[in-house]
Amino acid sequence: MGKKLRIGVIGAGRIGKLHSNNLVNRVPDAEVVAISDVYLEGAKALAESLGVKKVYDDYKKILEDPDIDAVFICSSTDTHSKISLEAAKAGKNIFCEKPIDHDIAKIEEVLAEVKKAGVKYQVGFNRRFDRNFKHVHDVVADGGIGDVQIVKVTSRDPEAPPISYVKVSGGIFADMTIHDFDMVRYLSGSEVTEVSAVGTCLVDPEIGKAGDVDTCIITLRFANGALGVIDNSRQAVYGYDQRIEVFGSKGQITADNETPNNTTYYTADGVYKEKPLYFFLERYNDAFIEEEKGFVDACLTGKDTLVGAFDGLQPVLIALAAKKSCELGGVPVKVGE
Amino acid sequence: MGKKLRIGVIGAGRIGKLHSNNLVNRVPDAEVVAISDVYLEGAKALAESLGVKKVYDDYKKILEDPDIDAVFICSSTDTHSKISLEAAKAGKNIFCEKPIDHDIAKIEEVLAEVKKAGVKYQVGFNRRFDRNFKHVHDVVADGGIGDVQIVKVTSRDPEAPPISYVKVSGGIFADMTIHDFDMVRYLSGSEVTEVSAVGTCLVDPEIGKAGDVDTCIITLRFANGALGVIDNSRQAVYGYDQRIEVFGSKGQITADNETPNNTTYYTADGVYKEKPLYFFLERYNDAFIEEEKGFVDACLTGKDTLVGAFDGLQPVLIALAAKKSCELGGVPVKVGE
Amino acid sequence: MGKKLRIGVIGAGRIGKLHSNNLVNRVPDAEVVAISDVYLEGAKALAESLGVKKVYDDYKKILEDPDIDAVFICSSTDTHSKISLEAAKAGKNIFCEKPIDHDIAKIEEVLAEVKKAGVKYQVGFNRRFDRNFKHVHDVVADGGIGDVQIVKVTSRDPEAPPISYVKVSGGIFADMTIHDFDMVRYLSGSEVTEVSAVGTCLVDPEIGKAGDVDTCIITLRFANGALGVIDNSRQAVYGYDQRIEVFGSKGQITADNETPNNTTYYTADGVYKEKPLYFFLERYNDAFIEEEKGFVDACLTGKDTLVGAFDGLQPVLIALAAKKSCELGGVPVKVGE
Amino acid sequence: MGKKLRIGVIGAGRIGKLHSNNLVNRVPDAEVVAISDVYLEGAKALAESLGVKKVYDDYKKILEDPDIDAVFICSSTDTHSKISLEAAKAGKNIFCEKPIDHDIAKIEEVLAEVKKAGVKYQVGFNRRFDRNFKHVHDVVADGGIGDVQIVKVTSRDPEAPPISYVKVSGGIFADMTIHDFDMVRYLSGSEVTEVSAVGTCLVDPEIGKAGDVDTCIITLRFANGALGVIDNSRQAVYGYDQRIEVFGSKGQITADNETPNNTTYYTADGVYKEKPLYFFLERYNDAFIEEEKGFVDACLTGKDTLVGAFDGLQPVLIALAAKKSCELGGVPVKVGE
Repeated sequence: MGKKLRIGVIGAGRIGKLHSNNLVNRVPDAEVVAISDVYLEGAKALAESLGVKKVYDDYKKILEDPDIDAVFICSSTDTHSKISLEAAKAGKNIFCEKPIDHDIAKIEEVLAEVKKAGVKYQVGFNRRFDRNFKHVHDVVADGGIGDVQIVKVTSRDPEAPPISYVKVSGGIFADMTIHDFDMVRYLSGSEVTEVSAVGTCLVDPEIGKAGDVDTCIITLRFANGALGVIDNSRQAVYGYDQRIEVFGSKGQITADNETPNNTTYYTADGVYKEKPLYFFLERYNDAFIEEEKGFVDACLTGKDTLVGAFDGLQPVLIALAAKKSCELGGVPVKVGE
Repeated sequence: MGKKLRIGVIGAGRIGKLHSNNLVNRVPDAEVVAISDVYLEGAKALAESLGVKKVYDDYKKILEDPDIDAVFICSSTDTHSKISLEAAKAGKNIFCEKPIDHDIAKIEEVLAEVKKAGVKYQVGFNRRFDRNFKHVHDVVADGGIGDVQIVKVTSRDPEAPPISYVKVSGGIFADMTIHDFDMVRYLSGSEVTEVSAVGTCLVDPEIGKAGDVDTCIITLRFANGALGVIDNSRQAVYGYDQRIEVFGSKGQITADNETPNNTTYYTADGVYKEKPLYFFLERYNDAFIEEEKGFVDACLTGKDTLVGAFDGLQPVLIALAAKKSCELGGVPVKVGE
Repeated sequence: MGKKLRIGVIGAGRIGKLHSNNLVNRVPDAEVVAISDVYLEGAKALAESLGVKKVYDDYKKILEDPDIDAVFICSSTDTHSKISLEAAKAGKNIFCEKPIDHDIAKIEEVLAEVKKAGVKYQVGFNRRFDRNFKHVHDVVADGGIGDVQIVKVTSRDPEAPPISYVKVSGGIFADMTIHDFDMVRYLSGSEVTEVSAVGTCLVDPEIGKAGDVDTCIITLRFANGALGVIDNSRQAVYGYDQRIEVFGSKGQITADNETPNNTTYYTADGVYKEKPLYFFLERYNDAFIEEEKGFVDACLTGKDTLVGAFDGLQPVLIALAAKKSCELGGVPVKVGE
Repeated sequence: MGKKLRIGVIGAGRIGKLHSNNLVNRVPDAEVVAISDVYLEGAKALAESLGVKKVYDDYKKILEDPDIDAVFICSSTDTHSKISLEAAKAGKNIFCEKPIDHDIAKIEEVLAEVKKAGVKYQVGFNRRFDRNFKHVHDVVADGGIGDVQIVKVTSRDPEAPPISYVKVSGGIFADMTIHDFDMVRYLSGSEVTEVSAVGTCLVDPEIGKAGDVDTCIITLRFANGALGVIDNSRQAVYGYDQRIEVFGSKGQITADNETPNNTTYYTADGVYKEKPLYFFLERYNDAFIEEEKGFVDACLTGKDTLVGAFDGLQPVLIALAAKKSCELGGVPVKVGE
């Protein structure tokens, strides 16, 4: 066995559990050596189930441990940029869940510190690692459809989150569409320069009362001249709807939803196919593993991570522009203004 | 045999030929008794090939013929509203190719006259009669997807028209997207109230020089609260791309392209499916016949036509708003302002 | 207008009506000038509805009419070979519904007479004209899959015929599989040399009491070394199931069922596609028209018909072998023994 | 962590490596404690790569180890029944790769000994654990298609094995179709009573010289009255073709191939889908893991294994009947005669 990457996981909530489990069971080159959570019991339970020895309620113990090569920042969103900064200063390689921050200045501070420290930094845009989306990206990047002209993303959740979550989510653009903003950058190979967003509240009036929208369409302009469009809904009753389409001067490539199986069932009443996999844990299960392997590989080999700190900044800038456009009723807004 | 509808076809160009041929060969209850064209030789050749006796260079001969029940107005666009008015005054039932006019006032004059004369009026929005789109409409209208929330139309031509045509077309929104504007009204069961359009020139710089765009995305708001989006390109190298998707509170229904056959071909190099049918003559061949049958049936039975004069007005209003929005760089514009 | 083929239709039952209607309304180069039926009222009603002038209760009047170029033999099966012989002697081109006869000697007599008379002869194997199956054939004939190795046909009716019909049908192999025997010859480009058939009665015990089977699998050997398999059922509750698959040294090509439309409907309960078109009238509607056009074209231009008299003989020989094999419990039987 | 199943792997060749890797990395409740191979260096290398401590050249050391709960028999086929017997006598739970033996008497001896010893026994028919095939099975078993009437399996390898392998393989029915014989039993829920097989040599004449066929069609009768058909080829140039179809009185359910991704790529030349996953390691990767989990779970909980020793016997009996039928030119042969 070659050298393994020694990892400390910060945060033992849903996403921390997901990464810890995958790192232990599915990423052969990773070794989880410590887990921390402000709620110590949670960290303990997770560590015990995975055979991890070191458990802390203070993530700083992880940053101080010279035996640790890298951290997975899975704590609450408001701590991402702060811990990123400290981890970079401590010389740790960093995998940080999205978003780095809602505050552009703080993200830029992280970017600067990461550059200065020379550590690896990867943001948790897992969908880039979906086998279908990655293949679309590769064909496009390889010139398979010529010049990109239109990028389309359909992205709908199977059910709306609790209102309590909606209230602190930062709004649909920062919370949900942010993945799609990353996706269009990834697929188009170009930066978004301008955004128009129209939104409305059709799923749950409580979301509207909370100052957010639950249904929206976002039109994009890219630096390379292409156009893009994303449509979101907080609730597709048939399941998690995640499809993409990239159209260009020489063709088009599309990716469809994944289903539990590919059977077709014929009866006197009709012909049935399976619904899409229910939600992101099912749909992007393999993508999470691939992103973890990618990070571990980058750390061990010195290669660049596939989703760097700059990739953590851009979607936040686009989300801010989208939010502003939506508040203005759809007036186009330049990204970064 | 029951009574047939006696029809005069005005205009023997491409679309006049199409309708004449279908009426003679595919619509049992129709009888084409006269054909007119300012270019008499064209009308003669068409009439002879179909066994039609009366041929004129002046459409007024058709309007004056008491033996004729209905007219198909297939002449050049700038004559549609004028001939519609005269035909209504002459008491003829009217099938008019789209658009009725680019001038709203003239369309409204036609509406008033048609109402006064009590004649049938149908506008040539043939896509409503496509078996796939009609089924989507029927499921939506029947409540099959609950409340409509998002309507999506992909509509791309296989190749751009000649620049000479682009220059007189009235622009992409009035010429090409107008069919899609009709489609979203048909599918949503609601009127478009506001439009944002972004456009660019990616297919042919000559189109840009002619003051038009060839690639665009149009976002729509409907009176019932739903959102919509249309994307257009003047050139999809893989053929005529015509797909729709309607998403609602209880589900979604989509329609795909039609292909020459449904075979799948597997080789060592890959798995091949057929490309979409090349262009509108192939794709909407059966839809043209259905629209003609629908008009003939409405005339013979007294039922309403499925696409009335009001349906000829609305898409023109939406196209005007889209054009204005596009010129303003995507700023939302109210329809009818 | 060029010269039309002047046709007399013999037999005004279901298939005679189908052909007459198509010839009048869908085949521009055909003219139905006479219709005969032993039940004169039926012939009269059909002729009147189509504007056909000459009506007879004796088909010989049609054979004697020097004004008639060709006949469509749509009378009862037991008259096919007899009328074919007389029509050939009368110098008429002949379209004959399948089967020519159940008696091989009589079919061979027809073949000889047709050859001697030099008239066109086409047997009603309409499925060869299905756009999907024809494309499969064309790709195979063009070498697209290399040497043919396995030919598979799935062929199931939506519901069993009445027992009264089953009793006079000649058995499933002669009545239903005969189309599939033609299809495998068409697809493989080779003759069937040996057949094994296993059959059973799973749909309706009355079919078994009538001495027939309703579910069967037939294995075939071809002269070119390929193997084939057909599976039949008298009842597929989801509709008419007609699929083919040809596998070879360089690949495979398959054709699927046709559906009323290509929509996909997503709900909380599942994802629905349309069932296959109900039965042969729906599925092979266009194929019937194409076979009629093909016959008319062969008569007018002198080209060979696409399904000649020899093609009417072979499937009957294969059906006889299949029947014998099935009675022997699946023992292989040589075709033509 | 609960108690893990302590496993000794016998045989460190291709399939032994596969199972060892999966057991260590993908089956949380399994612990590989020993690996043996007559070629000691192979066992050592594998054990080292996986952190397994005990390595032997004699599998008896594993059988004698009281610390071991279960064995995976991955040695050469001619040792399967012998080691199975000894392992059962040693009280070990047994996972045995297929086939148990080519000699029916020896398999029956294993069955008796397993019963007597009361140990778990699972045969490596991994395809039952494929998510698609399992879903088809579950729908059928649940009555979703009513009474089973026709079972169809398409099963073709992407390339023929080396002639050296063909010579010792026991023939296509024992080597390749045996998986399909298991599959039809699994899907139909019934035993095969009679088999007709026709075979030929179309892929490689060397296979024929070795006394085997490379292309075959096998027709089956089941105890419940249903019919079945399997078609095999040693070489499908487009990849591993593994599809099933079960047809019954209330409907049909089918499963298709799996592909590397679900994208669709449209160009001016055509529309492309991905080819099937290349071969069994790719296609049944997840199925292998599921079968291992199933075995481990049965051992730990006392539940029955999903593929027992009896399931190891039946396909061998069917293969023998198929071989005999093929040698007789397709004459039906009773299973177990």
